[in-house]
Amino acid sequence: MDRTISSEQINEFSKLFRLNLINSITGYKPGNLIGTQDASGRKNLAIFSSIVHLGSNPPLIGMISRPAVVDRNTLSNIKETGLYTINHVNTNIYVQAHQTSAKYDHGVSEFEKTGLTPEYLNDFQAPFVKESNIRIGMKLEETIPIQLNGTILIIGKVQFITCADNLICENGSVDLNLADSVAISGLDTYHSVEKVDQLPYARP
Amino acid sequence: MDRTISSEQINEFSKLFRLNLINSITGYKPGNLIGTQDASGRKNLAIFSSIVHLGSNPPLIGMISRPAVVDRNTLSNIKETGLYTINHVNTNIYVQAHQTSAKYDHGVSEFEKTGLTPEYLNDFQAPFVKESNIRIGMKLEETIPIQLNGTILIIGKVQFITCADNLICENGSVDLNLADSVAISGLDTYHSVEKVDQLPYARP
Repeated sequence: MDRTISSEQINEFSKLFRLNLINSITGYKPGNLIGTQDASGRKNLAIFSSIVHLGSNPPLIGMISRPAVVDRNTLSNIKETGLYTINHVNTNIYVQAHQTSAKYDHGVSEFEKTGLTPEYLNDFQAPFVKESNIRIGMKLEETIPIQLNGTILIIGKVQFITCADNLICENGSVDLNLADSVAISGLDTYHSVEKVDQLPYARP
Repeated sequence: MDRTISSEQINEFSKLFRLNLINSITGYKPGNLIGTQDASGRKNLAIFSSIVHLGSNPPLIGMISRPAVVDRNTLSNIKETGLYTINHVNTNIYVQAHQTSAKYDHGVSEFEKTGLTPEYLNDFQAPFVKESNIRIGMKLEETIPIQLNGTILIIGKVQFITCADNLICENGSVDLNLADSVAISGLDTYHSVEKVDQLPYARP
């Protein structure tokens, strides 16, 4: 039986029900860990499911940060240093990745708390996750405040990509199945993914 | 063997290689069809993989439109009417959904060309896709131009959600596996998805 949920009903749901509903209604989301450090080198790691492709030339990637009304280490570190890393979550590390969403005190490193291993590559001054199979070094380009709800669109430019050679297909595509990258739904559910089909460029 | 791809290499790749690489490097993306119509009721349907959750209270959803330098029916229809629909792509309709990305002439309805069925619900003046299992009526709230590359962040507010009753779990989450929603990688690859785990709220 079909069910229609009105905007009035959405308003009246409990906070948790609404969070679960609206966070899952958009479909599957990528699972990424964002690695940062502050000016004195204190490391931070946080899971984000709001990474979005903005353009390929130049290679720009966006992500949504929640309002800066409380301490947001990731956002403040990115603003402080201009650098961050994107690390794909895979099925071997999703439990540790999820644990980075716990509200640790300021200055606590989620790397230490979760057991994920920080790794520095190519003199890039932000920590990568050693256990991740696809990793991107990013440089901040712009932050755009979204007045409607106080969130912030963080836009960065790809500085370099590192992964196993066999994950890059002949046409440039990345084999996310082989990389074992996970998809996320809602706030807490992790999924494995299997290719159904690759389609040719569509013509009228 | 690990491979590092520098930003200089990304610049020098062929356009197609770069498009495939950067479109797939962010991880899995949701597959959604955006239904719109212009003021005279001419329908349009377009696949988007850039839908992103912006917030739950109010329920706001974002999507990225490519630069408006060429005719973008979806963007112009949304600006004209203020309304659009989000329809999840499932494994039964991904071929037709992909075909909506072909460059049809202005005024041609992708519904007719692909065989997907337009459906009007609750007096909402934008077409839904009958074959989709999770559907959202959206009202435009704001368009934010991204100066860096000319793309546009379209922000809308959820007006209503319609789906089978059993897809909404007790805690409000939507069962995307049961809805058979697909994940997309890159520009052309469609995936089915299977739950691995649901984790409890993370605490320090």
